[in-house]
Amino acid sequence: MAFDKNITVVKIGGNVIDNEAALARFVKDFAQLPSPKVLIHGGGKLATRLAEKLEIPTTMIEGRRVTDAATLDVVTMVYAGLINKQVVAKLQAAGCNALGFSGADGNIIPAIKRNPEPLDYGFVGDIDASKINTQLLGTLLESGVTPVFCAITHDGNGSLLNSNADSVASAVAVASASIAPTDLVFCFEKQGVLRDVEDDSSVISLITKTDYPALRNEGIISKGMIPKIDNAFRAIESGVASVTIKQSECVANPTAGTTIK
Amino acid sequence: MAFDKNITVVKIGGNVIDNEAALARFVKDFAQLPSPKVLIHGGGKLATRLAEKLEIPTTMIEGRRVTDAATLDVVTMVYAGLINKQVVAKLQAAGCNALGFSGADGNIIPAIKRNPEPLDYGFVGDIDASKINTQLLGTLLESGVTPVFCAITHDGNGSLLNSNADSVASAVAVASASIAPTDLVFCFEKQGVLRDVEDDSSVISLITKTDYPALRNEGIISKGMIPKIDNAFRAIESGVASVTIKQSECVANPTAGTTIK
Repeated sequence: MAFDKNITVVKIGGNVIDNEAALARFVKDFAQLPSPKVLIHGGGKLATRLAEKLEIPTTMIEGRRVTDAATLDVVTMVYAGLINKQVVAKLQAAGCNALGFSGADGNIIPAIKRNPEPLDYGFVGDIDASKINTQLLGTLLESGVTPVFCAITHDGNGSLLNSNADSVASAVAVASASIAPTDLVFCFEKQGVLRDVEDDSSVISLITKTDYPALRNEGIISKGMIPKIDNAFRAIESGVASVTIKQSECVANPTAGTTIK
Repeated sequence: MAFDKNITVVKIGGNVIDNEAALARFVKDFAQLPSPKVLIHGGGKLATRLAEKLEIPTTMIEGRRVTDAATLDVVTMVYAGLINKQVVAKLQAAGCNALGFSGADGNIIPAIKRNPEPLDYGFVGDIDASKINTQLLGTLLESGVTPVFCAITHDGNGSLLNSNADSVASAVAVASASIAPTDLVFCFEKQGVLRDVEDDSSVISLITKTDYPALRNEGIISKGMIPKIDNAFRAIESGVASVTIKQSECVANPTAGTTIK
């Protein structure tokens, strides 16, 4: 399979989904990105609000949602239903031929229910990028379709599972890298990785495997950013050409944000 | 495009969706039907229950749900999210390569928001079978995929719409008839059209355009059955090879139910 451009895999989170103006701008910019491209969306805040209204308690362990049967229904409704279809309809209106997916659809992202030991997360699914249906993904991209993934997957035995949207994005990018060179973009709140957290203009534009240890030792990269960068390097070791962390407002600007190579 | 069998388009309603045992049986039988095939599902009762829990009033006019913005979110969550993905996951587990769709996905079923005069149904969409994306439908069927449609459509301008699942089924069957000969099956509670409503064994196995006026005049076909049969004849006039009304338990039995030709 050959494309004249890299495949771009973009992940957006709740901060874009929850903000009507930010989502409208993102949809417009993303629709104009050259194909082939893929979108992965989160949407945790909306799920928490629906769970509250339905009086289903929300339990988070280390930022991950514990997913009992009632919570699985909530996240399936919100991620695979409301958010996925709203985003697809908006992208269609913007001229982008989007097609929404859970991992069950076309068996595109099979997952494995996480071992209940040492912590029982319930219906949470871990993804093995090598199990992604790259044939279907390739066929879609070749025909000009933009797949839009929510973080609902399935176990192949009839049960849906709740996966982490960042992990879905990394796994899809690794799978897509076996089709054609792939760039992975994580949209988040900040302009990128900042040298000085108080200064939005201090974006580190490039982090390489060589720079990274020094940036960690100097404490410039710390806390919540470490797992993101570690994940980025893992994606690159698995074949992804580049990982960029940038603001959703800058998704169409190829030089914005921090690129990890 | 050529298939060695007719395309089968099956519609199931809330009576199957709401009953775990009935759904399990249906999934097993449907998975074993020869391809190419398409499934359309309703799910109105679950949507009404979620709306109740969220204290969103449900208004029905002549059996059709009035769909304000809050109700549109509810039906999108329940039809395109919960039910569609559960059915897809169960079909995948049964060996059927199902792929779920709203009308927005791949712009496969565009619809037009119903005129608010004389009755304002809100975000309700009417479908023109000639606008269905038959190219995508044909590509999916040719590659062995079983599309699973909920009754959520879109207006092409970014808004989702709530459509009638029977109308989606008829329109999809008419569109699919332009690809290859198509049989449409409506699953419902009864064995078929009964000559005597008290006698389940009195199924009329065949109704033709010639028989129909007499059956109506004799009062054998009356009330709720008339629009169903009228719809069936309209589908046939638009190119569908046959329309069968049967119990979901009999979906795999080719001689069960009432066939309209």
